[in-house]
Amino acid sequence: MPRVIVDVMPKPEILDPQGKAVHGALPRLGFAAVTDVRQGKRFELEVAAADEATLAEVHKIAETLLSNPVIEDYAVRVAE
Amino acid sequence: MPRVIVDVMPKPEILDPQGKAVHGALPRLGFAAVTDVRQGKRFELEVAAADEATLAEVHKIAETLLSNPVIEDYAVRVAE
Repeated sequence: MPRVIVDVMPKPEILDPQGKAVHGALPRLGFAAVTDVRQGKRFELEVAAADEATLAEVHKIAETLLSNPVIEDYAVRVAE
Repeated sequence: MPRVIVDVMPKPEILDPQGKAVHGALPRLGFAAVTDVRQGKRFELEVAAADEATLAEVHKIAETLLSNPVIEDYAVRVAE
């Protein structure tokens, strides 16, 4: 079955407390290579066929149910 | 600055209540094309250089801080 991936990330101008918390923990754990962290969500949607109608529906789902368009951006792509 | 993406998903054999909740909501909202949903996390890590040492450190971070290896799988890749 084809899978469609929806990535939901906080908009760049929005504060991201979860990402900040991870970033703040890194030096305490001895990690120095990472300069910033943003945390978002990833959804894997299994679909019968990854055709145009289905992808249009997934975009609608991503916009209305999986993300909050005021504070989050989403991206839809078909998994290889 | 190069960015490294860490995707963290529940292992296939692990129950995923968040994904199930999304999947259960879809028919009620009039969406019929999706047959299964899994929900995970996506991290964007900004690094000074995406070299081998940095990627090794990011793998270590993903394993110890970003995921729970008992119930989650993670994947690391450099963003284009």
